[in-house]
Amino acid sequence: MRIPILKLYNYLLISIQTEIDDQTAIQFQEDLLDKIHKSGTSGVVNDLTSVEIIDSFIAKVLGDVVTMSDLMGAKVVLTGIQPAVAMTLVDLGIHLTGVATALDLEQGLIKLHQELGE
Amino acid sequence: MRIPILKLYNYLLISIQTEIDDQTAIQFQEDLLDKIHKSGTSGVVNDLTSVEIIDSFIAKVLGDVVTMSDLMGAKVVLTGIQPAVAMTLVDLGIHLTGVATALDLEQGLIKLHQELGE
Repeated sequence: MRIPILKLYNYLLISIQTEIDDQTAIQFQEDLLDKIHKSGTSGVVNDLTSVEIIDSFIAKVLGDVVTMSDLMGAKVVLTGIQPAVAMTLVDLGIHLTGVATALDLEQGLIKLHQELGE
Repeated sequence: MRIPILKLYNYLLISIQTEIDDQTAIQFQEDLLDKIHKSGTSGVVNDLTSVEIIDSFIAKVLGDVVTMSDLMGAKVVLTGIQPAVAMTLVDLGIHLTGVATALDLEQGLIKLHQELGE
């Protein structure tokens, strides 16, 4: 399966609402970078509200996507990280340092506006 | 698989980006009605930009969702209907009469604003 990527105004919105396997994560990475390239977006909000469990591979892919998007000129904000996911990330030693986060989709869009100075 | 439903401000946004089978369509119907109930939203934008093929069952489900949402007090706007999908719908005798449509997600949100008088 593929994770849908919505284009709204000049931003991309993603909401991950299923447990993702490794193949889906890699496909998502490709799809998102491709969509950033094609749409010329300046910002992405990736909402993880419905993600209850995360493993080290998925966490690495999500972190990599942020860095890769940044290289392409698009700022990524992660939103809705659940308590259990936050605990797992820190337990795994993955700190996602320098990654912008926010409580939910709305706050994520506000954060993007601030970060991009729009 | 389940189709993700995003909540943005007081609206729900859906973008169907895979070919959907009958089971997914039924699941989507349930999920959307449930989310309308829980979120108390007044409007839904359902974007079909990435849907290339549609059959009579899926078309019926999509039409039913609009009527059901309407009964629950939420206005649905369908956006991004592709030429091939529009042709198939009319060929199948499905006219989706009274259903609000728009070109893309942005136009769909504008249409919702207008329809709801907000």
